[in-house]
Amino acid sequence: MNIAMIRAAALRLEGHVRRTPLLNSSFVDEISGRRLWMKAEALQHTGSFKFRGGWSAVSALSSQAQKAGVIAFSSGNHAQGVALAARMHGASAVIIMPSNAPKSKVENTRALGAEVILYDRDTEDRQEIGRSLSQARGLTLIQPYDEPEVIAGQGTCGLEIAAQAAAVGITEADVLVCCGGGGLTSGVALALEAEAPNMWVRPVEPVDFDDVTRSLATGMAQTNARLGGSICDAIVTPTPGALTFPIMQRLCGAGIVVPEEDCLRAMSVAFARFKIVLEPGGAIGLAAALYHGDQVSGKDVICIASGGNVDAEMFARALAEYPCT
Amino acid sequence: MNIAMIRAAALRLEGHVRRTPLLNSSFVDEISGRRLWMKAEALQHTGSFKFRGGWSAVSALSSQAQKAGVIAFSSGNHAQGVALAARMHGASAVIIMPSNAPKSKVENTRALGAEVILYDRDTEDRQEIGRSLSQARGLTLIQPYDEPEVIAGQGTCGLEIAAQAAAVGITEADVLVCCGGGGLTSGVALALEAEAPNMWVRPVEPVDFDDVTRSLATGMAQTNARLGGSICDAIVTPTPGALTFPIMQRLCGAGIVVPEEDCLRAMSVAFARFKIVLEPGGAIGLAAALYHGDQVSGKDVICIASGGNVDAEMFARALAEYPCT
Repeated sequence: MNIAMIRAAALRLEGHVRRTPLLNSSFVDEISGRRLWMKAEALQHTGSFKFRGGWSAVSALSSQAQKAGVIAFSSGNHAQGVALAARMHGASAVIIMPSNAPKSKVENTRALGAEVILYDRDTEDRQEIGRSLSQARGLTLIQPYDEPEVIAGQGTCGLEIAAQAAAVGITEADVLVCCGGGGLTSGVALALEAEAPNMWVRPVEPVDFDDVTRSLATGMAQTNARLGGSICDAIVTPTPGALTFPIMQRLCGAGIVVPEEDCLRAMSVAFARFKIVLEPGGAIGLAAALYHGDQVSGKDVICIASGGNVDAEMFARALAEYPCT
Repeated sequence: MNIAMIRAAALRLEGHVRRTPLLNSSFVDEISGRRLWMKAEALQHTGSFKFRGGWSAVSALSSQAQKAGVIAFSSGNHAQGVALAARMHGASAVIIMPSNAPKSKVENTRALGAEVILYDRDTEDRQEIGRSLSQARGLTLIQPYDEPEVIAGQGTCGLEIAAQAAAVGITEADVLVCCGGGGLTSGVALALEAEAPNMWVRPVEPVDFDDVTRSLATGMAQTNARLGGSICDAIVTPTPGALTFPIMQRLCGAGIVVPEEDCLRAMSVAFARFKIVLEPGGAIGLAAALYHGDQVSGKDVICIASGGNVDAEMFARALAEYPCT
């Protein structure tokens, strides 16, 4: 796993993946106490950065493997990213999703032409289901984060951040990344190591699902007690990836752990100030910058707003409970 | 009023105004029955295209006039655009706003450092208030649309559309523009005449506030019976501008008139499919493309999503009443 793979992925993604904007707002700068920049990956195709990794992985397959089809497990964003990437390559896709995933994510994945298989997040093992179906039907399994070409695809977001930040004169900043298994975090960290070595990636996780933060602090992979039950469904994973953890250990600063309510508050700020729709897990980097700035250093902070696939009810709840004035 | 003024404004705006993205979505293409492209001006600074015109007008003033300060009347978007542009030029700003404008617009205008004066939309004449205050206090009045430098600033949005559409291979399309007094509509029409002569601007207005559509149809400036009472507050004006109407007559296709409910439905689509927050008036171009496609021609349609300054209550109402599935 290295920068050359990220650059190669960037070439394959060119013209297919959206170069999302790096946004700022004087109102938000006031709340956060420093200049805050938001990389709006919610505007990516399928509403999250996961399309980068999906496209990267599917486009790296042989045409024979593409023809046979792909399989993925996901709470919804990787699902949609892989489903659309597969469809655009003429490949079929089977997606294994938790039965309690947000409705919209399940419906959208189906609408993108994928076959969706639901499982119980608390009692069944998606890895097992994925492996057995993959073997039985000859499908290539595209892991959500522990997969080099997926990490390479997510890393292209880091290449863009380096270039867009440099264009506004910024070469030093903490970069707050919404962190589940660490695919985006490790990919962006590798990209910034090469292109913006004075930027420092900080993984951000929800309270009770802070496996990466504790793993980085102790130097050993830690596991979460719970497997589900967070509104930040997109970034809930049991433990850091075998591929992603060593990269994060080498390149990332300390993790930041954020209460769920702060994600809802940040969604309301993104609504009012950036006119961007974020889901709770996609807003957690922004939440860290806004409400946990004491753990951040420097006069600029960059946060990746990683996704916007949220049901209307949850979004309306964020606006009603945490009005941004 | 000509293309040279728009190009000159583009040079003054460079580095200060955001080049907003031109977005698409396969889901939305299915609803509209053709390829639909959304110019996401809600992502502009202050949440609407009005910052373009505000910056253009303030930056065109002498430093002496800037020092004396500016005055504007607006339901909220021009207010914020002028207020921020003035502040960034070190100029003071007085803004005259209707007392029933969305709360967030009034608060934001104040937060941007402007002095806000409220008036009653149904009984008072904002033009009169503006002129008398302007004279009494030596302020330069920046008209919301009937002002060459404002039209020039809004026209830069058209220059971007021409370039961004060409980059994805599109040179022919109807361009649906949310239309109030016609500043954006006429500016974009002038820009496209020069840069994309096979694009055709179509003004879009709400039912009961279709003065431009009727004026274009009859060849004479028509007036709306009501002055307020629309959820599309941003694009409610009594009659086409004296400067903008002749430009629209020369360059625009027929207007499209859209019921308010369709704006709410389009807001819900923009939420679910583009992850963009739109206000009702800012969604009316998208609404025309989605639900009045029989009045549009060609395989591509471009709509300008002109603003996203909407109160949380109105936004939640759109999502609840018109779920996008």
